[in-house]
Amino acid sequence: MSDPSEEGLLLAPKFDADGLVTCVVTDAKSGELLMVAHMNAEALRRTVESGEAWYFSRSRKALWKKGENSGHTQRVIEMRVDCDQDAVWLKVEQHGPGACHTGRRSCFYRVVPLKQTGAIALQFRDAEKTFDPNAVYDKK
Amino acid sequence: MSDPSEEGLLLAPKFDADGLVTCVVTDAKSGELLMVAHMNAEALRRTVESGEAWYFSRSRKALWKKGENSGHTQRVIEMRVDCDQDAVWLKVEQHGPGACHTGRRSCFYRVVPLKQTGAIALQFRDAEKTFDPNAVYDKK
Repeated sequence: MSDPSEEGLLLAPKFDADGLVTCVVTDAKSGELLMVAHMNAEALRRTVESGEAWYFSRSRKALWKKGENSGHTQRVIEMRVDCDQDAVWLKVEQHGPGACHTGRRSCFYRVVPLKQTGAIALQFRDAEKTFDPNAVYDKK
Repeated sequence: MSDPSEEGLLLAPKFDADGLVTCVVTDAKSGELLMVAHMNAEALRRTVESGEAWYFSRSRKALWKKGENSGHTQRVIEMRVDCDQDAVWLKVEQHGPGACHTGRRSCFYRVVPLKQTGAIALQFRDAEKTFDPNAVYDKK
């Protein structure tokens, strides 16, 4: 009764209603979580074929090569898929000083304190800027 | 011109059209990626308040406490939110032998080989079963 998508060896991504899978990106060396992004079929294909990370921007509705503006590309060291094939994991070599468009190494620079109720005040953690996004990205 | 959701300290999750944020779950000690899940506002609130992981199942359309059937609960050691607040990261203490419903420690037990075109054959990696899902989950 095992599900072939779970126990089989054919890559058969389960895209959501918008045609996307979730992508978790970690630093291949340190293991640090850098970012979460999305891939459509074309981004997935290009990533597998090239070994460089491509994503699909939900806000811009556009295919996007990581680093195409900033130069902060990601070389994929290992790629995995999860049990139900609706998420992939990229272990990458992050080129340049960071993965986050806010100018930080990781997008996850704020802690949510636990055992709280009501409005939650976040706490900065590992939040130092490693580059100036205004200098790196084209400004419209 | 900085975005308050990015540089501010108020938790203001950006739920998607289905009312969900993405949740990345890693082992607090080893750093290993265990699973990717989703949270609605109620799952997020319960997780923050209790320090135990709650999710929202997209397939079952139901709130779900991790481990409610298997006993394999997750105690949250640290919780973070990403730059645009549409993803959270839980560093957890995984109770029991695994996080994946297929009987493995992690859901990411298959590698996608790179520099390939056409149909992709996955490769098992870290795929040994740490428990028997048939013995752990209620069978209908």
